Order: sequence, then structure tokens, then C-alpha cells
Amino acid sequence: MMPMPSNAVTAFAPATVANVGPGFDAFGFALDGAGDRVTARRSKRPGVRLVGITGDGGALPKSAGRNVVTAVASKMVRGLGLHFGIDLSLEKGLPLGSGLGSSSASAVASAVAVNALIGRLYSDDELLEFARHGERVACGAAHADNVVPCLLGGFCIVRACDPLEVIRLDVPSAWRVAVVHPHIELPTKKARAVLPRTVPLAAMTANVSNAASVVAAIYKKDLGLLGRAIMAETVVVPVRRMLIPGFMEVGRAAVHAGAAGFSISGAGPSLFALTAGDRRAKVVATKMVAAWKRLGISADVIVSRVGSAGARIVGNGRS
Amino acid sequence: MMPMPSNAVTAFAPATVANVGPGFDAFGFALDGAGDRVTARRSKRPGVRLVGITGDGGALPKSAGRNVVTAVASKMVRGLGLHFGIDLSLEKGLPLGSGLGSSSASAVASAVAVNALIGRLYSDDELLEFARHGERVACGAAHADNVVPCLLGGFCIVRACDPLEVIRLDVPSAWRVAVVHPHIELPTKKARAVLPRTVPLAAMTANVSNAASVVAAIYKKDLGLLGRAIMAETVVVPVRRMLIPGFMEVGRAAVHAGAAGFSISGAGPSLFALTAGDRRAKVVATKMVAAWKRLGISADVIVSRVGSAGARIVGNGRS
Repeated sequence: MMPMPSNAVTAFAPATVANVGPGFDAFGFALDGAGDRVTARRSKRPGVRLVGITGDGGALPKSAGRNVVTAVASKMVRGLGLHFGIDLSLEKGLPLGSGLGSSSASAVASAVAVNALIGRLYSDDELLEFARHGERVACGAAHADNVVPCLLGGFCIVRACDPLEVIRLDVPSAWRVAVVHPHIELPTKKARAVLPRTVPLAAMTANVSNAASVVAAIYKKDLGLLGRAIMAETVVVPVRRMLIPGFMEVGRAAVHAGAAGFSISGAGPSLFALTAGDRRAKVVATKMVAAWKRLGISADVIVSRVGSAGARIVGNGRS
Repeated sequence: MMPMPSNAVTAFAPATVANVGPGFDAFGFALDGAGDRVTARRSKRPGVRLVGITGDGGALPKSAGRNVVTAVASKMVRGLGLHFGIDLSLEKGLPLGSGLGSSSASAVASAVAVNALIGRLYSDDELLEFARHGERVACGAAHADNVVPCLLGGFCIVRACDPLEVIRLDVPSAWRVAVVHPHIELPTKKARAVLPRTVPLAAMTANVSNAASVVAAIYKKDLGLLGRAIMAETVVVPVRRMLIPGFMEVGRAAVHAGAAGFSISGAGPSLFALTAGDRRAKVVATKMVAAWKRLGISADVIVSRVGSAGARIVGNGRS
């Protein structure tokens, strides 16, 4: 017996840490727990509509062309001749402009929910392209280092963008990351504006060496090597850390508390630090929060596996 | 019973392929068979002397300060207060200026032979520093991407230069490389002179992504991925290939004959191509040689494992 198609599907898509030191625009990994949810529901009214957003504090655009969730869904159904419309609702679990892949999580959750509603018409590769379209709507660039781990989970390398080719690595299961999000605003556009247009050849070589070392560290299960490799970035982190008050103090607190290394999560302002176990990660997170607090900045914490599961269906209704 | 110290030691150090596509100044791997030999012999006359060179066609400098072999040995024994001198002889197995790590092989063979003669006083890390001194004498820069795989074998990542930190990877044993050395001269200095001083940020990201993919490909035993990753280099190969007549014709011949990918070995003019087995590598090598021959250029071939054993003692005499 064929299962009845669902009338409503809810997808969860996790927060992600992109860049990861030397892997600017190339590396990303998925986090546990925190993320966005999108519910896609069949409607008798044709077309794609955003019927509700919660958790964004009213900050997100609601027009279909400018909201990530509807932009992704509209592109997915265009030309399919569906005999039903789709009502979307977005439950933001991630803060905006935090460096946690917030727009990616919305885009991927929308793509996964809509795909389930229309009978899983699209492959993962196609879903990634739709999600990148969402990134383009949200921040002007279709970069892939958040959407890829957000959909696939694990630690991902974006080898090529056109066409997209990605490599997914499994990370040792005991490794943990403490991600700390300070309550300061740092728009991705501002963080991209400070990037150098060109880099010295020797700086490229250093990032190449350290990025290769990141991959080797994952396979060799050598967290110390991973920490050294992510701390050695000299092109992007030195300019972006100027936009993050407390970068040095918080990073030093993390290393002093036993983290193997730390860097900026995505475009910031969140910082992440790596440890070998859960208890150590919690201690590190507490010390990082305390360091920001000393500067008068409050902060939230995510403690997670490094490279956990990707987006998934979490609710399925025929009501 | 303690073994008597040897009166003479012969060390072999292999040819190496450095750069390896996106790993400019960062990656290198060792080759089978071809290499240099250095014999170090105790002498009653104090000091370090070069008593013979064969195989260089008279091209190498013989003065102790300018020859790689004596430069390395002199630095190693300085201040040790040895009660004997050291006579060195060098058997060049590698052509000069070929992109096969010729000067590195001489430097490493000297370091290994002298170290054995003086009772293995130095660690591998120390030997690498002495060998880099030899590179500085030979070509003005103490780059490490040839000397590291030359000493350690395997496929090596130079993570950091100061202090040196290296990572050695084992490569799937069935993988083969066809290295073809055309009889044209391309001094390393000329090949370095064409390098850009700065690179666009996006080009850095592409090399970072592809270098990370090279490491992932080795662990995943995915030769197709390795081939795509080495072919995607856009910073160094496009300027250096202009110095190598036949680059495109020979590379196309390699791919057409079934190679997974090809690139420049070191600073060139040698090219290497990767395959999954010995017979395929021989076919590929033959087609590459034929392509150069059509342009009126003769060429030598090495077919080898990718990342074979490093330098070693091959002769030990008490005579």
C-alpha cells in the first residue's frame, strides 16, 4: 500500500560553523540541537505563502521575494504545475547575524520540508542549489559552506562551487565544540567588507597547509593538530577579529580552560572552541561567557558534537 | 656487544614530487627507485671534504661552501669536536633542474649518511633542518616540501616552517605515478620568478578547498577526486606551464590514456600523472613521452608508487 502523501511536513535544519580557521568559504560543520524549523502545509489556494514566523523578533522580511523560506520554496515549485499551494511557517531557533548559519538553516529547512511535501522530487545536490539561492536572497552571495553541512551533517569540504562538489567527513564522536554567541550585532555584509581582495602568496600557502592539516587531523583523530591548524589562519581572522570586541580575551579564556583551539564561527561575532569531551566543553563555554561578561557583553552558548546530523523531517501530519 | 662504528656509510635519498597541484610549497611525495647516493667515510684528515661526484656531467660546484653535500655535512659536524674528518662522495642519480627534488635528494642523502657515521646523534627533525640548509645553498630558499618526503617517505604536508611541523600520510598502495622529465632546462629560479606575489582571495579559497580535497581523497582512497583536485590549481600552474613547451599536449595525452589527473612536478619541467595501477601508469608514461617526442623533445620516465619509502642506509662498511 502506498503511503498517503502528507498534508504537512516539518523539517529541522541545524546551526553550522563555517570557515573553521583556514577553511574560509570552504569548510563547515553541523551542530546539535539549535536550528530552525519550517512547516510546509498543502493549501487549496495556489502559490507559495509565508503564513507565520516566530522567534525572529519581527526582524525578517515577510515578502515572498525577500524571505529566504519562500524564495527557496518558490524556486522549487516553479514550473511543476502543482495542483495545490504551499503555506510555510518558520520557527527561528537561531539568532540572525550571529555567525551560526541562521539564513542557511532557514533555507535548508524550507528545501527539505517542501521536498517532502512534493514527494521527494529533488536530490540532495538539487536541494543544495535551492538552498544556495536562499543564501543569495539573504546575503547577496550564494556561498555554500553553511548550507552543505546544514543539509548533509558532518564536517564538509566545498571542493568546487560550479558545479557544486562536496566532500563529507565523519569527525571523531568524542570531539566537542563550544560555540558562544555574544549579543552584539555584526552583519555578514560588514564582515565581508573588511576582507582583503588579494592575499600574499605565502599567506595562501599557509592556509593551504593548515586546511590540509585540518583534514588530516580529523582522520588521524589528532585534536591538538586540529587546534594548531585552525589557530594559524592569517588572512581572514586577523581582519575580522577587529570587528569582534573581546576576541582575544575570550579566545585566551578558552585555551586557558583547555580548548585545543578557537576561531570565529562563520563571519562572526560567535566564536567556537574545540575540546575532547563534553565536560571540558562546558567548562570552556562557561569561561568564554565569563570573559565576555567582564567586558559587559552577555552571550549564549551551544555545546555540541563537531559535525553532527544534518537537516531532517521532524513532523509529518495528514490532518 | 656494541657494534663497531662504521668507517663508511652510503645513504640513498629518493626523487620527490613537490607542490602536487594545489599544494604549492606545502605538499610532496616520495618516488621509488630514482635518487641520489652519498657515501661518507672517516678520514684521518680533519674537516669535511668532497672527494668525488659522479652522474652530474660536471655541472655541480665542488667548493665545500657551495656544494649541497658538503654544506649540509659541515653544518652537522660544526662544534662537535670530532676526532676524525669526513670524506664525502656523491653519486647523482637525478638530473639537475628537473623538478624531481634533485638538490633535496643530495642534501638528505648527505644528512643521513653523515648522521649514521657520527652515531645517529640527530633526530629526523634536526636532519630536516640540516637538509633545508642544503636547499638554501642550492637554490636560495629553504623550502621544505621536497626534503620532508625525501627523508620521511609517504605523502607529506608541511604544516608550518618555523618551527617545522610535518604530517606524513600513507597513500593507497596500488596508486602509481608516471613522472616524465623532458630534456629541456628550467632553472628553479626562473620558475620562481614567474610566481605572482599576491593572489585573489577566491583563488586562495579554491586552492584551500582543493588541497583539503587531496588529503580527503588519500584517506577515502578516491583517485578520481585526487585527480580533479590536482587539476583545479589556478595560481601557480597557469603561469608555470607557460615555461614548459608541450604542457597541454602531454597532459592531454596522459588523461586520454587513463590518468586520473596530471600536474607539474615541483617547479617543472617534469610533469606527473596519477593512475590506479602499474600497467596503466606505464601506458600513460609511454603516451606522455610520445607527445613530447612529437614536439621534438626527448624525455625520461619514472613509474613509481605514490609516496614510497624515504631515505635509507644502503651500504655500511668497516673496510
